[in-house]
Amino acid sequence: MNITRRELSKLSTGLFLAVIAPAQTQDPLPSWKDGRSKKAIIDFVQATTTKGSPQFVRLEERIATFDQDGTLWVEHPIYSQVVFALDRVVALAAQHPEWKRTEPFKAVLANDKAAIAKLTIKDLEEIVFATHAGMTVNAFQTIAEDWIAAASDHRFGRRYTELIYQPMLEVMSYLRASGYKTYIVTGGGQDFVRAYSDKIYGVPINQVIGSALDTHYTYNDKGQGILIRPPKLLLNNNFSGKPEDIYLFLGRAPRAAFGNSTGDQQMLEFAKSCTGASLAMLVHHDDAKREYAYGPAGGLPDTKIGTFSQALMDEAKKDGWIVISMKDDWKRIFAFQT
Amino acid sequence: MNITRRELSKLSTGLFLAVIAPAQTQDPLPSWKDGRSKKAIIDFVQATTTKGSPQFVRLEERIATFDQDGTLWVEHPIYSQVVFALDRVVALAAQHPEWKRTEPFKAVLANDKAAIAKLTIKDLEEIVFATHAGMTVNAFQTIAEDWIAAASDHRFGRRYTELIYQPMLEVMSYLRASGYKTYIVTGGGQDFVRAYSDKIYGVPINQVIGSALDTHYTYNDKGQGILIRPPKLLLNNNFSGKPEDIYLFLGRAPRAAFGNSTGDQQMLEFAKSCTGASLAMLVHHDDAKREYAYGPAGGLPDTKIGTFSQALMDEAKKDGWIVISMKDDWKRIFAFQT
Repeated sequence: MNITRRELSKLSTGLFLAVIAPAQTQDPLPSWKDGRSKKAIIDFVQATTTKGSPQFVRLEERIATFDQDGTLWVEHPIYSQVVFALDRVVALAAQHPEWKRTEPFKAVLANDKAAIAKLTIKDLEEIVFATHAGMTVNAFQTIAEDWIAAASDHRFGRRYTELIYQPMLEVMSYLRASGYKTYIVTGGGQDFVRAYSDKIYGVPINQVIGSALDTHYTYNDKGQGILIRPPKLLLNNNFSGKPEDIYLFLGRAPRAAFGNSTGDQQMLEFAKSCTGASLAMLVHHDDAKREYAYGPAGGLPDTKIGTFSQALMDEAKKDGWIVISMKDDWKRIFAFQT
Repeated sequence: MNITRRELSKLSTGLFLAVIAPAQTQDPLPSWKDGRSKKAIIDFVQATTTKGSPQFVRLEERIATFDQDGTLWVEHPIYSQVVFALDRVVALAAQHPEWKRTEPFKAVLANDKAAIAKLTIKDLEEIVFATHAGMTVNAFQTIAEDWIAAASDHRFGRRYTELIYQPMLEVMSYLRASGYKTYIVTGGGQDFVRAYSDKIYGVPINQVIGSALDTHYTYNDKGQGILIRPPKLLLNNNFSGKPEDIYLFLGRAPRAAFGNSTGDQQMLEFAKSCTGASLAMLVHHDDAKREYAYGPAGGLPDTKIGTFSQALMDEAKKDGWIVISMKDDWKRIFAFQT
């Protein structure tokens, strides 16, 4: 019986607006050009949330999942979390003199860009274990928050958190205003993304599902319980891992899913497995000028985990997934591009 | 845009009441006798939710976690889920003729009560793997729902879902009306509890954290994606597993935690690790007449996983946890006892 008016307002403003505001008074997706993609989103929301619609979806089933890298923010030429891990290798080098003589750390410390570009997934895993584990969850959280607040992308000269796709933020807001819960379902590290998800995406930390190290509950020298991060992967939230982990956390499939690579394919299939209306969308990076062009639009090599292959494009066409063209569907890509 | 008034009402009735109803117009815990336990709950809610209170807790941190077996419903003489698993052995026996000759199945099929009482954790694990795995998640959900709708407890002659502790339901409702999210954090199977959590406790399936089998995403013969349950434990949500899994799902500690055994000890420590106000409570089964007496109150043997040991009672006293006496603190235990 103790909740302040301000809190109530914070909780339910979106819902009130949803009920009280006349439909269509303003464009919920102002950064989207009119076209098939924008129409698909609006049609889906109307069909699943209009009372009496044959495709109406109950509130508890209104779940929308978003991949992060390449779907919500820039992933080229290298995932931000990999940059974070490499920066951590440098920061921790003094405590690990052996790294100067041991690959893959040696290449990182020598800033050998050619060698860094060739790091395998196994190398990256070794770097992640060496830099993300062996500390409490709280210590890691602080390190990640500090890094994300300061680090910048080279091409754009902007913080990574400014390289969020404005049209996708609008989709998230529109879905939330329509009673959907928005989840980030990322191959990236769950705790890394939780360091900024609320601030940057408006997604609370308990709505981030990602790849996760195991944790180990133990006691510090004062006898207080602490959670330590051992170098052991508990959830590999890529490919099949996405529907598996969504089910683990939520107990059901999402109604709408957004991705940009084969790493998201199974999540999109999972969304399409719902009875009734569902939405599966793929962001296609075909805009070399404003962002990057890779996948079927060619040009650059794909990033390391998951690709936008021709086979994925074929599955999209066959199964009624919507392919978003960054070039043709988006008026602007970043908020700073007015 | 598209949310019905009825949905809005469903979502926010509790919140409206919280704001509009004058404080204390009615007792939020009518099945509780006045005393230290009831006062501790009310004081905690007042301290953490009254605007301007030095111990005020933001909405996103208002998390309350509840163990299930022995905390929310009866666990004696045997966990309901174990009864479910034994019933499944009988149901599946025709497909497994070898079980007639193989322990632990042989004892179950012979209904050898003495042998069943002596089943080890390893035996139970084998029975769970044989009865809970090897099917899709949807098939398991249907089996669990059907069972829980029909199965009854022998002593009380009531459905298991009627053997919920009414005072604890009131605590859950009171916390929810005060902006807390209530989670079930159970050593039992996550998918088993999700089969009835919403209906019985008002806890949506995505707020159930439990022991979980792995799932495996694959395709059926029509090429549709399905999730299969392999006989492999992913999360063992007991003891240290509770804070570990709460962190995995939610990214932070609960402000309030309720348990009844050493299987909950680390979860209660985790709650008490919060800066500011927190609440840790243990249900002590000391009422042989209306329910059961075990633990320090003696009499019956403890159930298999976790015990209410004297060491736990000592930790409770030392760390300011509140021990709930079923006998002295609760006016009634079950809703059917008026």
